[in-house]
Amino acid sequence: MLLLYKAMVPGLRQACRLRSTPSRLCIQACSTNDSFQPQRPSFTFSGNNSGTGGWRVMGTLLGLGAMLAYHDHRCRAAQESPRIYTKEEVSSHTSPETGIWVTLGYEVFDVTEFVGLHPGGPSKLMLAAGGPLEPFWALYAVHNQSHVRELLAQYKIGELNPEDEVPSTLETSDPYADDPIRHRALNVNSQRPFNAEPPPELLTENYITPNPIFFTRNHLPVPNLDPDTYRLHVVGGPGGHSLSLSLDDLYKFPKHEITVTLQCAGNRRSEMTQVKEVKGLEWRTGAISTARWAGARLCDVLAQAGHQLCETEAHVCFEGLDSDPSGTTYGASIPLARAMDPEAEVLLAYEMNGQPLPRDHGFPVRVVVPGVVGARHVKWLGRVSVEPEESYSHWQRRDYKGFSPSVDWDTVDFDSAPSIQELPVQSAITEPQDGETVESGEVTIKGYAWSGGGRAVIRVDVSLDGGLTWQTAELYGEEQRPRKAWAWRLWQLQALVPAGQKELNIVCKAVDDSYNVQPDTVAPIWNLRGVLSNAWHRVHVHVAS
Amino acid sequence: MLLLYKAMVPGLRQACRLRSTPSRLCIQACSTNDSFQPQRPSFTFSGNNSGTGGWRVMGTLLGLGAMLAYHDHRCRAAQESPRIYTKEEVSSHTSPETGIWVTLGYEVFDVTEFVGLHPGGPSKLMLAAGGPLEPFWALYAVHNQSHVRELLAQYKIGELNPEDEVPSTLETSDPYADDPIRHRALNVNSQRPFNAEPPPELLTENYITPNPIFFTRNHLPVPNLDPDTYRLHVVGGPGGHSLSLSLDDLYKFPKHEITVTLQCAGNRRSEMTQVKEVKGLEWRTGAISTARWAGARLCDVLAQAGHQLCETEAHVCFEGLDSDPSGTTYGASIPLARAMDPEAEVLLAYEMNGQPLPRDHGFPVRVVVPGVVGARHVKWLGRVSVEPEESYSHWQRRDYKGFSPSVDWDTVDFDSAPSIQELPVQSAITEPQDGETVESGEVTIKGYAWSGGGRAVIRVDVSLDGGLTWQTAELYGEEQRPRKAWAWRLWQLQALVPAGQKELNIVCKAVDDSYNVQPDTVAPIWNLRGVLSNAWHRVHVHVAS
Repeated sequence: MLLLYKAMVPGLRQACRLRSTPSRLCIQACSTNDSFQPQRPSFTFSGNNSGTGGWRVMGTLLGLGAMLAYHDHRCRAAQESPRIYTKEEVSSHTSPETGIWVTLGYEVFDVTEFVGLHPGGPSKLMLAAGGPLEPFWALYAVHNQSHVRELLAQYKIGELNPEDEVPSTLETSDPYADDPIRHRALNVNSQRPFNAEPPPELLTENYITPNPIFFTRNHLPVPNLDPDTYRLHVVGGPGGHSLSLSLDDLYKFPKHEITVTLQCAGNRRSEMTQVKEVKGLEWRTGAISTARWAGARLCDVLAQAGHQLCETEAHVCFEGLDSDPSGTTYGASIPLARAMDPEAEVLLAYEMNGQPLPRDHGFPVRVVVPGVVGARHVKWLGRVSVEPEESYSHWQRRDYKGFSPSVDWDTVDFDSAPSIQELPVQSAITEPQDGETVESGEVTIKGYAWSGGGRAVIRVDVSLDGGLTWQTAELYGEEQRPRKAWAWRLWQLQALVPAGQKELNIVCKAVDDSYNVQPDTVAPIWNLRGVLSNAWHRVHVHVAS
Repeated sequence: MLLLYKAMVPGLRQACRLRSTPSRLCIQACSTNDSFQPQRPSFTFSGNNSGTGGWRVMGTLLGLGAMLAYHDHRCRAAQESPRIYTKEEVSSHTSPETGIWVTLGYEVFDVTEFVGLHPGGPSKLMLAAGGPLEPFWALYAVHNQSHVRELLAQYKIGELNPEDEVPSTLETSDPYADDPIRHRALNVNSQRPFNAEPPPELLTENYITPNPIFFTRNHLPVPNLDPDTYRLHVVGGPGGHSLSLSLDDLYKFPKHEITVTLQCAGNRRSEMTQVKEVKGLEWRTGAISTARWAGARLCDVLAQAGHQLCETEAHVCFEGLDSDPSGTTYGASIPLARAMDPEAEVLLAYEMNGQPLPRDHGFPVRVVVPGVVGARHVKWLGRVSVEPEESYSHWQRRDYKGFSPSVDWDTVDFDSAPSIQELPVQSAITEPQDGETVESGEVTIKGYAWSGGGRAVIRVDVSLDGGLTWQTAELYGEEQRPRKAWAWRLWQLQALVPAGQKELNIVCKAVDDSYNVQPDTVAPIWNLRGVLSNAWHRVHVHVAS
């Protein structure tokens, strides 16, 4: 149903673009049909004239005319005195047949058209069908922005009866009320769910990022799990048996400890936003951190459950114990070949820098997949299974993928791109910062560099003149094991500021041991989700005279 | 000795730069010392006052004065009537102590200063010490270029006795006389050794490159090996025993067949040359080809010789049976971990596209290392051993490495960079070609894309406007196995030529499944050997009006 729906929406969407041009054009376009009762558009399509279920088929009544008429009603509804609905009326609009309505405060919206375009996926928006958005916006606070409210305003069809009781604020029954207290040094990109990064100058202060300032990327409220009753469910393999592992059971597997850098796919997204708007949190350079992780190797646990590597493609699916009001949990998967490879060192980690995992980082158990995008390192791990297909989670299939700059939300086909696993080579400057003033004479430039898939960083080139000439930085940090360089290098360059220079355009770029390099500029790698932002990092500084 | 020597040379080299400004400056700088007998400069250095062996230590006699005096003699020698030497005199100058002399035709050169700067390595040049360059230039025909002759001219100290017999031409005793006959379609970059690439339009005509036009990269003459007496020597591991394998012995190992793309590190070097001169063959886009290879897996052969994976780093060294006049064979190595990994599918190949290997491609046995630079796929394989260090071959340690654009031949430290193994993501346009005129209406754009390390190409973006807007090409070819995508994808785009457009700046760039991308431009990845040239490929075409 939703597929059909999605295929139909782009046309409507085109028509609805008119709405962003304000009232005059909108009113001019309105027809003589004065009924405010929203009337569903009806479509016909070849190969289905049955008229049963889904969209009603209305043959020749169909067409752009109907679409425009429908659009016109809505234009007027938004312009003139609002139509009043009861909560009961709203609650009966929960399907494409009836129309899909939602409320926010006292306002009522018909989002039928928008469902297929919802960046979080249609199913997420359908959870709110027939009722208030507040509980969901409280969960996904990314909605609470002016451009989202403007978008929503286009779908307004009326208001609730003022005598009806409505959620007073977004704070009602805050699902995040039990989230842990965080370190004040973190730069917060979103409170609900909590997403925050360390400030650049702290980020490269230590090779190992201290737990309290390790970047945090949560998708949902932080569950509060009891370590005594915690169980990890591992679905058994063919001829094996399922496991229900307590923490003590996990501790009995050989303890494996490795230094691994985690990076969010959205690290440095803010630079993509400067090219063109993207959907996502405005991470700067800090959605990356490094810790010493310890736990059981996933391959050992899978082997105990009777799994082995098979010739056919298979995936290990992880489910978190963090969930939304519908019970949907965070989920992701990695290929079985990686999970079963002892050299890939995938961990079910219960320690971070010698401490039990902090709640924000997955207490009591999270997955750590060295060399792979953060999104697969599922926190608060509840369930592990081996499946013939990737995880059906929204975050595996409808997010965390890369697209061409030419793809937008009207044309994106999430099935056309592979889920991000290994990340490309990356580096950024943490000192000095953009806009800073540096002393003349000598300048100290610092940063980090990392690459996915265990590929070691072999060189970082730094330029003071925007990329015309280059110097090579000194690399620091733990020795990189061949094929298992899971952790970043920090780097530093003491550079002479050319005499008389009033400003510097400092640039860095890293090279990994496959000799992959970072692209020069952001625009050609721009993508609608703002992921994989790994162009040369550039900061512009003034020189004190 | 050579290390010390090399450390001293840059200063001299600075002084000698004067020579490129012609005679006037040179003569002005000449001193009153009229002796043409070259006088060796003497250096002192802290920590060694013994005065024995190597450079003679002359205490306070040392210094720039001595260097300049020495330089001055040489200036004069080059300007005035030539000093005459006998062949015997030349033959006694074969060490830093005596000076290192060589001849070309009747001319005599003192290349003592240059030995440490020789791009092919000091040891290679030392083979010619005290005698004629001709046999070596015949072997390494890259020398036979005007800029090499100009460089050499700077070191001229005199001439041979006209009555002495000298090599008449470079053709004397051609070590390449027995090379195979090649297909006429190949674009030849060098005849001796033979290096050639298929023309672009043939390159992407077939997914599998036909053997006769598969790109050929030889470093030495092609050996003519008898398959009946051929033996592959495999040095035994601890507790194992060495093997001497005939072809029949090799055939007894399980036959493994895979499609693998080979690419020379120098593919697309000609684009780097346009930025700034580099040393190497002028490959265009054709130093890449794809074949179906069959043979024994290296891991099986190593296992039979008693080798197993060890915790400490180790390397599998390969020696070819192609050799130079001194008996030095081509050689290279790969890490043992890759060699022993069945999933890495390293082959000792004896078949190429269902045929015995052609002579140019390593008959009877070559190494095929999927996902790795061509230079490690050693041809005419003679010997395999496992060593604690990489191959000491020139091509492993003093070539096929990447450097920052800021590194030149005066500052390069080959030990500072890892040898190239996995290659970065690559793509190029094969149709239309640069400078061509295309019809208005629609244009067909074709090319190839590939990435190293088994990473699959997931997308090729094509632009008609130099990279401002992008379209996604269709990918063709064999299905890519996860982590084992050893072969290229061919791609094609049918694109509308915007009406009224007089020219197109066509660009392509590929993305692999680690989401690494090609860099936008060549200059920031320029390196002195012109390797790893994988910037966006650009062709400029005219549109027929």
